[in-house]
Amino acid sequence: MLAEERNPLKVLSLGSRNVAVIVNLETGRDKGSEDALDRLTHLVSGDLAQVNQLILQHMQSDVQLIPQLAGHIIAAGGKRLRPLLTLASARMCGYHGPRAAGLAACVEFIHTATLLHDDVVDESALRRGEASANVLWGNKASVLVGDFLFSRAFQLMVQDGSLRVLEILSGASAVIAEGEVLQLMTSNDTTTTEQAYLEVIKGKTAALFAAACEVGAVVADRPKVEQQALDTFGLNLGIAFQLIDDALDYSARQEALGKTVGDDFREGKITLPVILAYLRGDAEERGFWQRTLEKVEQDEADLRHAIQLMERHGTLKDTVNRAAHYGAIARDALGIFPDNAEKRALIDVVDFCIQRGF
Amino acid sequence: MLAEERNPLKVLSLGSRNVAVIVNLETGRDKGSEDALDRLTHLVSGDLAQVNQLILQHMQSDVQLIPQLAGHIIAAGGKRLRPLLTLASARMCGYHGPRAAGLAACVEFIHTATLLHDDVVDESALRRGEASANVLWGNKASVLVGDFLFSRAFQLMVQDGSLRVLEILSGASAVIAEGEVLQLMTSNDTTTTEQAYLEVIKGKTAALFAAACEVGAVVADRPKVEQQALDTFGLNLGIAFQLIDDALDYSARQEALGKTVGDDFREGKITLPVILAYLRGDAEERGFWQRTLEKVEQDEADLRHAIQLMERHGTLKDTVNRAAHYGAIARDALGIFPDNAEKRALIDVVDFCIQRGF
Repeated sequence: MLAEERNPLKVLSLGSRNVAVIVNLETGRDKGSEDALDRLTHLVSGDLAQVNQLILQHMQSDVQLIPQLAGHIIAAGGKRLRPLLTLASARMCGYHGPRAAGLAACVEFIHTATLLHDDVVDESALRRGEASANVLWGNKASVLVGDFLFSRAFQLMVQDGSLRVLEILSGASAVIAEGEVLQLMTSNDTTTTEQAYLEVIKGKTAALFAAACEVGAVVADRPKVEQQALDTFGLNLGIAFQLIDDALDYSARQEALGKTVGDDFREGKITLPVILAYLRGDAEERGFWQRTLEKVEQDEADLRHAIQLMERHGTLKDTVNRAAHYGAIARDALGIFPDNAEKRALIDVVDFCIQRGF
Repeated sequence: MLAEERNPLKVLSLGSRNVAVIVNLETGRDKGSEDALDRLTHLVSGDLAQVNQLILQHMQSDVQLIPQLAGHIIAAGGKRLRPLLTLASARMCGYHGPRAAGLAACVEFIHTATLLHDDVVDESALRRGEASANVLWGNKASVLVGDFLFSRAFQLMVQDGSLRVLEILSGASAVIAEGEVLQLMTSNDTTTTEQAYLEVIKGKTAALFAAACEVGAVVADRPKVEQQALDTFGLNLGIAFQLIDDALDYSARQEALGKTVGDDFREGKITLPVILAYLRGDAEERGFWQRTLEKVEQDEADLRHAIQLMERHGTLKDTVNRAAHYGAIARDALGIFPDNAEKRALIDVVDFCIQRGF
């Protein structure tokens, strides 16, 4: 969809904090869902300002390189999607106290720490359109400042003082690390199954989404069934989010987001669009994937050919379809919660995540 | 000191768990202090077996690379000095329950995680005489498995359930990361002050020693003053331990420990023996240090010349003397505790740490 085809419904949702705009016109999806994220941000704007303040405060250190490097990656922005999930989940559960902001900052610190380590492991040069920290300050600094932010995340959790919260977030951290190692092991293996790949993204992405949402119910002191519902919501939203990210890595729309197209391809990273193309391809095509992604022998024209193969077999489209499936599970998981502005905004965020892929 | 010159006092301390052997004969130091560590190990052997079991259990993962890599670095042995400190501190404080073993395992996991990251950052090829994990499995796996072990450490803390313990250990983790970053910043800077260097080793080494000891008093539910005494003991023991390590890096005795001599020199790492040699050297010598450690332009003969300069200015000896000062503070910190076998063993460990340097 081109930008100029976008949505006339924008007006409907502007400033209408409590109106759930279900944008189901094909041409309306994209802009409507961007508004969804704005709407969510607006709903929790007071808490979010507090989160940003906590982030700034806790990334300080007498060791100057730490706030410099951390400030670069944290200021580089991003959508603060994970903290938003914590804040909105807590509010949806009726919690309006100060603990959600601390935990949201903690979640963002864990996320930022993993980004720093990911960029080292992936040898990435760009992060959100800017030179990545490993390029600017080197791999060593990125590893160590990542460790620092990770430790700060734990200090923030400890300050919160809830052992249940500590259990959820420390458990998520271990699962994230496991997912990253699993990804390293499946790297360059074109025979990776869809199931194995699902385990990777559950770890590297979805576990933190799940934890971010679940702690919202915990601080609100809601029953186990609601905690589990938010865990399910976050997990499936996270899977959907990552699948869309993987599809976008081969999509021209990626460039509009300030990201390089074909990073995963160049690193020989095996994601669902590739797994499906390999499974659906003939012997010659499999030879192509083995050469380019297992042996990582690539020339100029290979990325274009890879995208052509994906389009021929509809694997980008089907990756988005798979994402839509997990998105649907996420939406349904919120069914037990009474209708309110935050619930509607969270559901709209699911749509936002999926629709990035169209 | 050569092995055959070693100590006739060995007999005195063999099997004598409760006798504090103050080995002040020059020829007796070394063997007596090795026995000190054996004695400490023997005192808490039941708990230590439990620690080793917990370590094995918690490094498991469905992701096979994790137990493989973690097993390599953890099985590579080491003295388990940090867990021993936790176990002995707890027992000295009268605690004989199961929590100390869990926290000792946690401390060892934090230590192992930092070792994995250190070896990546330092580009080390050997660890305790064996190929290091980054050489065998690559930097990426070492970073990520380090993250996993770090997360497991936090899970073990959370299982313990004490917020005070969580506060101490998460605080130590943040200080460790800060110390590592500070070390990276002072790297290759020959004008690093002794004070700045002290901050580095407080962070990278002494903070975990301090936390390992302090939690012993916390699980024993001892008053604040005893918690602080053990914090002081561990901090100063840790500083002494690291200073001796830094001296050993330029010592022939290092080879006997299965470590390479001159690792710090080759990496341009600025440690106290270098700082003192730079301060005490003339312009030509400072030029030598700048070329070899700032520009890291080194040839075959440079390490030998560096050691000659250190010997000329007595900086290795004085580094050990500085260490002895911190060792003395550590010993005195235990003054408030009543005499018992564990207290005597901990004091002997201070001697062990210092005497490694002679």
